[in-house]
Amino acid sequence: MQNIQIPPFDEASAKEAKRILNSLAKVANSLGIMEDLAVQLAGIQGNPRPTFLKKAHIIFAGDHGIANKGISSTGQEITIMQTKNFLRGGATINAYCRTAGAELTVVDVGIAKPIDDEKLVKCNIVRSTKDFSEGPAMTKEEALACIQVGIDQAREKASQGFQLLSIGEMGIGNTSPSSAIVALMTGSTVREVTGIGSGISKELVEKKIALIEQGIALNAPNPLDALDVLAKVGGAEIAAMVGLILGGASLRIPIILDGFIAGAAAIIAINLYPECKNMLIASHISKEAGHRVLLDYLNLQSYLDLGLRLGEGTGAVLLLPLIDSAVRVLHEMISLEELLAINT
Amino acid sequence: MQNIQIPPFDEASAKEAKRILNSLAKVANSLGIMEDLAVQLAGIQGNPRPTFLKKAHIIFAGDHGIANKGISSTGQEITIMQTKNFLRGGATINAYCRTAGAELTVVDVGIAKPIDDEKLVKCNIVRSTKDFSEGPAMTKEEALACIQVGIDQAREKASQGFQLLSIGEMGIGNTSPSSAIVALMTGSTVREVTGIGSGISKELVEKKIALIEQGIALNAPNPLDALDVLAKVGGAEIAAMVGLILGGASLRIPIILDGFIAGAAAIIAINLYPECKNMLIASHISKEAGHRVLLDYLNLQSYLDLGLRLGEGTGAVLLLPLIDSAVRVLHEMISLEELLAINT
Repeated sequence: MQNIQIPPFDEASAKEAKRILNSLAKVANSLGIMEDLAVQLAGIQGNPRPTFLKKAHIIFAGDHGIANKGISSTGQEITIMQTKNFLRGGATINAYCRTAGAELTVVDVGIAKPIDDEKLVKCNIVRSTKDFSEGPAMTKEEALACIQVGIDQAREKASQGFQLLSIGEMGIGNTSPSSAIVALMTGSTVREVTGIGSGISKELVEKKIALIEQGIALNAPNPLDALDVLAKVGGAEIAAMVGLILGGASLRIPIILDGFIAGAAAIIAINLYPECKNMLIASHISKEAGHRVLLDYLNLQSYLDLGLRLGEGTGAVLLLPLIDSAVRVLHEMISLEELLAINT
Repeated sequence: MQNIQIPPFDEASAKEAKRILNSLAKVANSLGIMEDLAVQLAGIQGNPRPTFLKKAHIIFAGDHGIANKGISSTGQEITIMQTKNFLRGGATINAYCRTAGAELTVVDVGIAKPIDDEKLVKCNIVRSTKDFSEGPAMTKEEALACIQVGIDQAREKASQGFQLLSIGEMGIGNTSPSSAIVALMTGSTVREVTGIGSGISKELVEKKIALIEQGIALNAPNPLDALDVLAKVGGAEIAAMVGLILGGASLRIPIILDGFIAGAAAIIAINLYPECKNMLIASHISKEAGHRVLLDYLNLQSYLDLGLRLGEGTGAVLLLPLIDSAVRVLHEMISLEELLAINT
């Protein structure tokens, strides 16, 4: 992993965006958190009237050894099937990206088996992580290499003119490493941050909690060392999302988070580089237990509450048109002064 | 007002849409209330895979005699100025409509003075309502004529191929008639459903409550006669929204409500024709006190909670891209069966 420099959030641009919003032909603050969104985006881009004409959504895919313990609603083979489906355009995220006008990229960081499709970005560092209930999921070198995949993706997208990146993931079993990460990094119990994932029974949730607790006890990751946590109980696609966050933040590109798993990546990224926090936008609050704990801990504002629990970045991409609207008012509205000069 | 026939909500199409959603390549119910939205839209259009390619947003504008009592943050002249601004494209709603790809129509039903602009649809029935704290706001004939304006608009839009209509309003002072309507129709106290509108002091809220209570006492509208309520303490643009709701519902066109004022129109419409309720979609919950009371009373699901309190239909139009996404999955996703047939 290369060294990263994250520029400071541009308070002056954010302040100027707020001043502009207050000067426009509308009641002050009448757009609620849509105004907060516009102000944050101004501070991230370093432009009081930011523009996000080109938007990319990136899905990182990876498999998890712990999925073979039967604590997911489906088997690991779904990771491959759904990844192929993303590439042919038949998944929920494809439909949502079309509405949002976002270009979709799918990156293999750790799918169990290779997929022969030229549209897939092949950067696999592992072929599934190891089962963290029995030992470390990855080595630290592997985790760092996954992070680098994400950093490289952010840089490539930036070089192609993308001004905003949203993230999603595919990886059967990936709520388990996310719960482990969030429990360790927030000091919560595993139970407080473990839910039904894509839909399992109460009994399986109990088994899942026990396995995660076992994995934490066995690997004893150091909560003060985020990389150690990420390697031992994390996942390849989670690490790549960490990299995308850091790479995006270093380039003043807003990163639109999705749900619990992207949030687990965010808490690692923020721990590594606290300055990246202001560059992150939490799109929605998902149904997964623990997402609220995480957002509260990070003090991140979420914008949508739609009961989503799919992943793929669906919540992130649903926010994109709202971002468009939030920013448009900075460009296209007349001022209150101009309004009052209209002849009645 | 012509007689209206509202067809029944198509339960079969709604059920079939849910069956399709459950058959798609995703976890069942993982799209939360986005699925409820798709199902309702299917039942409204009477099509398990509904399409809404052409969307229109309609703002009805009207003035209110009670605004001259100094209980609004601005004077009545803002109604004219902002209406002119809508027509030239410099208001928040213009920016939001551009993101959503919705065509904007502005209809004068009761602005105090005429506006000479050929883009304005001129259907004014009154030139401001009368101050309802001193007597009836409108006659019953005027209220009926305003409703007819809305019905006609719905029919015209339908004849032009629009498949979805969202509504908004402009009218300085129009939270006061809305509070009066909502108090009467829900059996709430005026205090429970009266707020700061576009932003007034605590003292002015007290004055506003007293004036609304005075208007209700003086006019004694019959809560069992929604037309009597609408005429005596309502407004021209509120009545036109009632008409748009009824006209849209009669043509199986979903009507996307905005905030408190559109909600006041909805409660009148539902009282007149209870069948129209299933044709309505409450886009967002606004900051105006009383909107929650109203949505709970009507048992309407809201989708966005962004702290908006502007009006113009801003919340309604922000929901349009989510509607697009909700419906797209019905058209564009592969089934779970097809997913499982993908060769791993």
